[in-house]
Amino acid sequence: MSDPSDFRESQRLDDGGPVPRTLTSEPRPDGLDAAAAAVRRLSDSLLRLGESTPYDLDTLTKQLQSLADEVDAHRPAEDERMREMWRDRPRHDPATGPQNPVAPPLVVHGLADGSVRGEVTLGIAYQGQPGMAHGGISALMLDHALGFANGWAGIGGMTARLTLNYKRPTPLFVPLTVRALQTRVEGRKIWCEAYLEHDGELLVSAEALFIQGHLPRPK
Amino acid sequence: MSDPSDFRESQRLDDGGPVPRTLTSEPRPDGLDAAAAAVRRLSDSLLRLGESTPYDLDTLTKQLQSLADEVDAHRPAEDERMREMWRDRPRHDPATGPQNPVAPPLVVHGLADGSVRGEVTLGIAYQGQPGMAHGGISALMLDHALGFANGWAGIGGMTARLTLNYKRPTPLFVPLTVRALQTRVEGRKIWCEAYLEHDGELLVSAEALFIQGHLPRPK
Repeated sequence: MSDPSDFRESQRLDDGGPVPRTLTSEPRPDGLDAAAAAVRRLSDSLLRLGESTPYDLDTLTKQLQSLADEVDAHRPAEDERMREMWRDRPRHDPATGPQNPVAPPLVVHGLADGSVRGEVTLGIAYQGQPGMAHGGISALMLDHALGFANGWAGIGGMTARLTLNYKRPTPLFVPLTVRALQTRVEGRKIWCEAYLEHDGELLVSAEALFIQGHLPRPK
Repeated sequence: MSDPSDFRESQRLDDGGPVPRTLTSEPRPDGLDAAAAAVRRLSDSLLRLGESTPYDLDTLTKQLQSLADEVDAHRPAEDERMREMWRDRPRHDPATGPQNPVAPPLVVHGLADGSVRGEVTLGIAYQGQPGMAHGGISALMLDHALGFANGWAGIGGMTARLTLNYKRPTPLFVPLTVRALQTRVEGRKIWCEAYLEHDGELLVSAEALFIQGHLPRPK
């Protein structure tokens, strides 16, 4: 399933440049990134608007459907778009992707000590328990940061086992820090750890086993 | 942190009605659910449109920003909306919420044998490896289904430890099945298991420890 040459080119993130280095794709102020940011904002606004509103949601829904129709009329073939998505560093993923309205988005930096560090603030769309982030969203942030930690260390792979320890509820609306580090490599097995924190307090810790290799990119 | 009376009222899902019973909130054809469905569709359309398009994304972005401005002008106070969100069965969560464009959404049923079973199809917004679901999104689906399994069994809580075993890549665009079951309760500790499958094939398994209790709902 893996393609080591593709892996080396696409996943090794430390090119010897200055650190700390931003490893996630920087959002662009126009094009698809700006449209995705506007959709992300609209999702948040609607969730905050609520049900018992005098605002005319039916007209809004029709406007959005008509915009989606317009976009669909310009869509390329699926395989063409898949190749574009995977040509360079991905910008579409649900954790960090500036093109993806589902992504909060998380921003990750590679540090000089070999670990990575990320920042994210989770809005109302990511709520689990009242006022707190959903445990599955914390898992998404941590799993993604672990992938970056492996890329930054130069040996990446696919998650085989991920264990999450939820120590404290993770609050919405405040800056959260994600730290991740590759701890050991043995043959194709890669071990790593990650931590989700707020204000220096540990909220969730994760340990993971990755297996070296990646699925091939669409060609 | 927990409020047992709130817990009993809000989390016990088996009211003795007929089974299989849909435990997730049914999407409504209008109002906030319909607007969220339109935003979800627009996210998908934009991600499929891609970067190298002659379509005028700048005009679209401006239209979306102006719609978000309009919605924001009608927003209630945050605490008022929080109370509304938590008054009845939640409709806003990032896994199953018909009001939440981030949710795929997953649909979950309570079965006669005490377990729960869900269905979800993951679109392009949930991509991890090429053509496959992000492992963190599988974690989100499984964690949420585990919560329902506890609610269906009548004793729920908060995730304390979640272990995910990724057996095979999880494909996008096909119907996936999530199964979850409470296996043991000992004092405040609750153990449960969940499985993500496609076409009868196991993709991801999960074991979890929950601790009884919930954060209080906003009043």
